[in-house]
Amino acid sequence: MKNFTSVYDVQQLDALVKKALAYKAAPFKDKTLGAGKRIGLLFLNPSMRTRLSTQIAAQNLGMEPIVFNVGQEGWALEFEEEAIMSGSTVEHVKDAAPIMGNYFDILAIRTFPSLKNREDDYSELYIKQFIKYAGIPVVSLESATLHPLQSLTDIITINECLNASPLPAGKKPKIVLTWAPHVKPLPQCVANSFSQWVNAWGKADFVITHPEDYELDEQFTKGATITHDQDEALKDADFVYVKNWSTFKDYGKIYNNDPEWMLTNEKLSVTNNAKVMHCLPVRRNVELSDEILDGPNSIVTQEASNRVWAAQAVLSEILESKK
Amino acid sequence: MKNFTSVYDVQQLDALVKKALAYKAAPFKDKTLGAGKRIGLLFLNPSMRTRLSTQIAAQNLGMEPIVFNVGQEGWALEFEEEAIMSGSTVEHVKDAAPIMGNYFDILAIRTFPSLKNREDDYSELYIKQFIKYAGIPVVSLESATLHPLQSLTDIITINECLNASPLPAGKKPKIVLTWAPHVKPLPQCVANSFSQWVNAWGKADFVITHPEDYELDEQFTKGATITHDQDEALKDADFVYVKNWSTFKDYGKIYNNDPEWMLTNEKLSVTNNAKVMHCLPVRRNVELSDEILDGPNSIVTQEASNRVWAAQAVLSEILESKK
Amino acid sequence: MKNFTSVYDVQQLDALVKKALAYKAAPFKDKTLGAGKRIGLLFLNPSMRTRLSTQIAAQNLGMEPIVFNVGQEGWALEFEEEAIMSGSTVEHVKDAAPIMGNYFDILAIRTFPSLKNREDDYSELYIKQFIKYAGIPVVSLESATLHPLQSLTDIITINECLNASPLPAGKKPKIVLTWAPHVKPLPQCVANSFSQWVNAWGKADFVITHPEDYELDEQFTKGATITHDQDEALKDADFVYVKNWSTFKDYGKIYNNDPEWMLTNEKLSVTNNAKVMHCLPVRRNVELSDEILDGPNSIVTQEASNRVWAAQAVLSEILESKK
Repeated sequence: MKNFTSVYDVQQLDALVKKALAYKAAPFKDKTLGAGKRIGLLFLNPSMRTRLSTQIAAQNLGMEPIVFNVGQEGWALEFEEEAIMSGSTVEHVKDAAPIMGNYFDILAIRTFPSLKNREDDYSELYIKQFIKYAGIPVVSLESATLHPLQSLTDIITINECLNASPLPAGKKPKIVLTWAPHVKPLPQCVANSFSQWVNAWGKADFVITHPEDYELDEQFTKGATITHDQDEALKDADFVYVKNWSTFKDYGKIYNNDPEWMLTNEKLSVTNNAKVMHCLPVRRNVELSDEILDGPNSIVTQEASNRVWAAQAVLSEILESKK
Repeated sequence: MKNFTSVYDVQQLDALVKKALAYKAAPFKDKTLGAGKRIGLLFLNPSMRTRLSTQIAAQNLGMEPIVFNVGQEGWALEFEEEAIMSGSTVEHVKDAAPIMGNYFDILAIRTFPSLKNREDDYSELYIKQFIKYAGIPVVSLESATLHPLQSLTDIITINECLNASPLPAGKKPKIVLTWAPHVKPLPQCVANSFSQWVNAWGKADFVITHPEDYELDEQFTKGATITHDQDEALKDADFVYVKNWSTFKDYGKIYNNDPEWMLTNEKLSVTNNAKVMHCLPVRRNVELSDEILDGPNSIVTQEASNRVWAAQAVLSEILESKK
Repeated sequence: MKNFTSVYDVQQLDALVKKALAYKAAPFKDKTLGAGKRIGLLFLNPSMRTRLSTQIAAQNLGMEPIVFNVGQEGWALEFEEEAIMSGSTVEHVKDAAPIMGNYFDILAIRTFPSLKNREDDYSELYIKQFIKYAGIPVVSLESATLHPLQSLTDIITINECLNASPLPAGKKPKIVLTWAPHVKPLPQCVANSFSQWVNAWGKADFVITHPEDYELDEQFTKGATITHDQDEALKDADFVYVKNWSTFKDYGKIYNNDPEWMLTNEKLSVTNNAKVMHCLPVRRNVELSDEILDGPNSIVTQEASNRVWAAQAVLSEILESKK
């Protein structure tokens, strides 16, 4: 593995999942793999799970993580080619990235979309510029349109649950991605990415449900069944992934914020006792009810805790490729 | 030791003091005790000594510390049960804490009081929620009403001074906690906590002095002599602990800010050449005069430097209990 | 070496350069020199290269770096003697520094000038107070008037280039420091410091060029040829160091911001195919054109990458002196 920005960077997804679960069983089994290596973790936006789990993953492999909060501890970066930098950006990624490439062995970056201009966000300029100019492997800690470490974790967690409670032979798990209400417009990253990874995994009956106007970009959802009828979607589901996103077409808007779309135990009753997933942070009693989050169907803590093993598997792959 | 949030978490205070002084003499004597273990240091509020000394203490024991500035690097946490999270808080402690509990072996948290609602602050909701939901040992790096690592340091420092210059046999040291002026309303934490620990230590003649209206919560001060006459209190004192706090009864106010309450060398003249203590940061020439801080009676640097050994003794106890 | 705040702290510059280049060839050759030692990196101002390279340098020597963003993670420090601290500063350097001195083995500090009062800035009060009160070696990560780690890096990089492409025997390299336009008033630190170090190195024909009114402090530039004619200065140059600074005499102002002073390939044509240097961050197409930064003459990435080896050589010298 060279970079890690989407499922297309993964050669064998099943093997990567297996590797992650092996690290969960034995966190320090490769504790010298990254000896003398450094990873730079660059945050252009806030982060909790991603920040902590990637530091831990690196340390488990013997790497030294160095965290840099770009805007708070440094200054604003410029990403546009040929910019005349007389405004508020202080340093061009063309100048910063190659230096990072000399300071570190792996560079990991978190950057959010503006939600103002769809074309700009979906061009993934920021992370692409880092890849172009850093000259070392780049790991996405969430980008403008995708969140691959989250999605890898989700696939790992689904596999773990299926290993623990296998379905009848030959039955595919039914996985439902359902839109949920929120208080402000959020990126489509997690929903795009989850769709991309479930499709690439290819072992599920995958259904996406959301109100009208919340259609996601087809490049990620193609292959899934899409419906506006949440109740219909939830029938016999084995996993329900709950997530809010803002509109894709008329970009970055909230059209419908119907609280009826919040998942409840009543709604869950038509599922196959489905496991409920969410990437967190979650707005309790807006996106997801207390009764679900505090109940036996929620696997959000297991999911978030698996972030360490997902990151460790990815860093391990990159370190091994560099050898 | 399971958690460390007050003196009541300490089984044998004398043994803990002895342990801390042993670490001062040999910082790395237990440098493999924490190998492969991690401590998360969560700061909901600013910190200098606590932040640095706890990182150092953890490293001395071979632990990996990971610092997380919750509000700056992440987002605002919600602590109320059953909250409908449509406001400014982004993640509930019920969701964040269990994940921390999986990421780390020990969790340390700093959180300040609001000074707006006494009942809320004195319920210690924040740290109690972390303890309830993290599932791992929790260390207070100062909470709404107490600052136990500071107080342990204070007891260590007093012991160190008494070891170096013993009092006549049978004489108890006289310890005076005196209120001092300040420019803004401060928490009662340090004063509460110092009172709680000196009382629990039980080897001093303990006097608290402050202007009218600054009575502290009796649950912490019970056992001390309390007087509004600072001169009377200072007579024959062996240790004078200087600290400002805001009012407890009519909560979080400044009633009297009389500069006459600032300690001076003249005031010190009635003491038994008392050592002067302060938790720092100190507003020079407001809380304490230059002449004292720069003079031979001040032990504030010794006191602050001992923070490392206090933290190291506490982490060591917790690590040993987990074995 | 005791402290590192200017070229005057260096006993043998050539030996220090050689040491840095030896670390570049073998980063981990002294990886136990700093075992059990700690360096505190205190940032009163933003930083990217300095922050990252000094952490890496310390780790390469086996030291543990601890970063502290003073204002963001702590609070504002007071530096004036005898201050009555009833304003916005929360802690005096007299109280903070000695504690740092007990927590750490080396203290490194970044602090910018105010650009409001020349006398204050040029007194270097901040870093001098840290040296006075910390009681341990202090390393400047850029101070009000100088940036010695940058300048050492610059001398290292010039030496590296001359080693790779030696000049005819007996010919001194011509080094030109040229002022460049900018969008806001900047400190004189980098220009002062580069001048001081090139003069101390003593192996160059050194020319400084800038518009009228931008004269630098003679204590640093004495020995250089100074001209307002940029074209004349650039003739036959082997190295061109580009940097903006605000006025020194009528302090901290922008008088002339003529875009004609921006270096271009056309201007470079009269040089001896000069290498172009800049400390970064650089405002592209304001200070320096894309054509130069992206062209074969720019050595800014090499220069910035050498920051690690400069810092490592300095920390190594200090550690060896302490033994």
